[in-house]
Amino acid sequence: MTGEFDLIDAIIDALGTTATRDGVVVGPGDDAAVLAIPPNHELVVSTDTLVADRHYPDGACADAIGYRSLAVATSDLAAMGAEPAYATVALTSPDLAADWATRFADGLAQAARDFGMAIVGGNLARGPEAVTVTVFGHTPRGAAITRSGARPGHTLYVTGTLGGAGLALGDESLGECSLAALDPSSADPGSPLARYWKPQPRITVGTDLRGIASAAIDISDGLSSDLGHLCRASAVDCGVDLARLPLCPGAEPTAAAAAGDDYELVFAAPPELEDAVEDIARRTGVAITPICTARESTGAGVRWFHDGTVVDIPAGFRHF
Amino acid sequence: MTGEFDLIDAIIDALGTTATRDGVVVGPGDDAAVLAIPPNHELVVSTDTLVADRHYPDGACADAIGYRSLAVATSDLAAMGAEPAYATVALTSPDLAADWATRFADGLAQAARDFGMAIVGGNLARGPEAVTVTVFGHTPRGAAITRSGARPGHTLYVTGTLGGAGLALGDESLGECSLAALDPSSADPGSPLARYWKPQPRITVGTDLRGIASAAIDISDGLSSDLGHLCRASAVDCGVDLARLPLCPGAEPTAAAAAGDDYELVFAAPPELEDAVEDIARRTGVAITPICTARESTGAGVRWFHDGTVVDIPAGFRHF
Repeated sequence: MTGEFDLIDAIIDALGTTATRDGVVVGPGDDAAVLAIPPNHELVVSTDTLVADRHYPDGACADAIGYRSLAVATSDLAAMGAEPAYATVALTSPDLAADWATRFADGLAQAARDFGMAIVGGNLARGPEAVTVTVFGHTPRGAAITRSGARPGHTLYVTGTLGGAGLALGDESLGECSLAALDPSSADPGSPLARYWKPQPRITVGTDLRGIASAAIDISDGLSSDLGHLCRASAVDCGVDLARLPLCPGAEPTAAAAAGDDYELVFAAPPELEDAVEDIARRTGVAITPICTARESTGAGVRWFHDGTVVDIPAGFRHF
Repeated sequence: MTGEFDLIDAIIDALGTTATRDGVVVGPGDDAAVLAIPPNHELVVSTDTLVADRHYPDGACADAIGYRSLAVATSDLAAMGAEPAYATVALTSPDLAADWATRFADGLAQAARDFGMAIVGGNLARGPEAVTVTVFGHTPRGAAITRSGARPGHTLYVTGTLGGAGLALGDESLGECSLAALDPSSADPGSPLARYWKPQPRITVGTDLRGIASAAIDISDGLSSDLGHLCRASAVDCGVDLARLPLCPGAEPTAAAAAGDDYELVFAAPPELEDAVEDIARRTGVAITPICTARESTGAGVRWFHDGTVVDIPAGFRHF
């Protein structure tokens, strides 16, 4: 059996240069990491847990789990308009075989490189398989985008396309998919399996939205749930026509509105900033689609329409 | 069944004023928390996971689990000389009954008050019971104390007493002990059960040691393990006479040297700062005991003596 400290060394080796970056004063291996935050910036932090057999298929490829666990946590930073910088990773596993753990670290490292982050510490424990990632980003003071600033008359937008990750849930190869199989040279980066295992947090769109978006949230539990959270926090209502949703090829609109795991952003912006929003789409190459307009709240929340009739959308992912 | 978002509201209610403090710009309930770090300070972060039936008895009282999970993570900040400020808490539980979760949050809140921290966010997931806490503190720039600065001739010290939490492992009421039973008005705060469930991170000693200690580590896995880590990181050896260890009443020296969970600090300081160390003990009321002197490393690491003979000390807690 590999000892804990040998295993930590193997993981730090696998992380390679992603165990450090500008601003890491003390990295992995001490009681705590010591990190610089730029002057006049605020720290933005979020924590996410993925549990095997609940948030991903039991027995899935370790590198894919590593990539996805950092990506989904980082999506929360993108939704705040924060620049991602650091992460800690707590891994619980029944046996923690050295080869599994280093493949997991390889996936983490690949995601950390893609997002410009350093893995600065973590924890290893024996127990049922689960990963908890805490991510640290920063924004200029006062610039973070919350869920609560949308006002009646603001346009609600969604980035990218919806329903891709949801399609992957029906793919029987989901649990056997390694990162290598998702390499852009061998697979379409927009394929459902890539959308599920390698979500791309909308980091640049998020930072570009500072000073433009009045509210934002990421779509982790499904557009229907997350748009509802934004509207409740902002005390506005809205009505969305399913025909306006930007869909992944093959996705059906009702399913795409309910499906979780897309990690796109929903945000609000005043109508006079429409050109600025269109500029961001042009600069980043990410589609940004207006889906509805916020209204004074009457307590109705989000209503959905299809061909002019009200339709019910199932709630998004239930954690419980 | 309580919905996730009702449960989060109940938990935030139970946290009360500990969901905020100076510097919390955005607290629980958004995609991420937004936090201020004082100018010219560095961020210090650490993550710890406690798994039911491995790191504490399965079925233990929720409030005690909440207190202990924040305390053990915060001890790592104390070892760096950092001032604790914020924490995020990721709870995984098979059913997450609302009364269990609010008692857990009560315990967290009590610990957060004791340590001057705010619980700024977290995650709830259904799965096998485990808690991952990430703690955030700060130190003036360049002031954090690492494990690697001890030099030959420096004195090694230990705070408080050892072996108390280890004694609790033999107490059959360990798994039924609520925080109320450990209230100082009804129980000795130095009792083994209190040492186990309500460890008191040496926060003030840690911050006072900035500029004085050359290296520090907290005793989470046992003095034998953790002193070994400090000596390896600092490239020094030492020899400890068991007779010099400050023991909890009832603790046996060999067991106390090996036992985990004490959450005292071991630190090194140059001999010319002996008076400054004694001043800290006087100011804080925490016993600080010199246990040995660091020597040039010959690769021997830490050796243990009893009545002048070399003795073997079992390794501390094994995570694997």
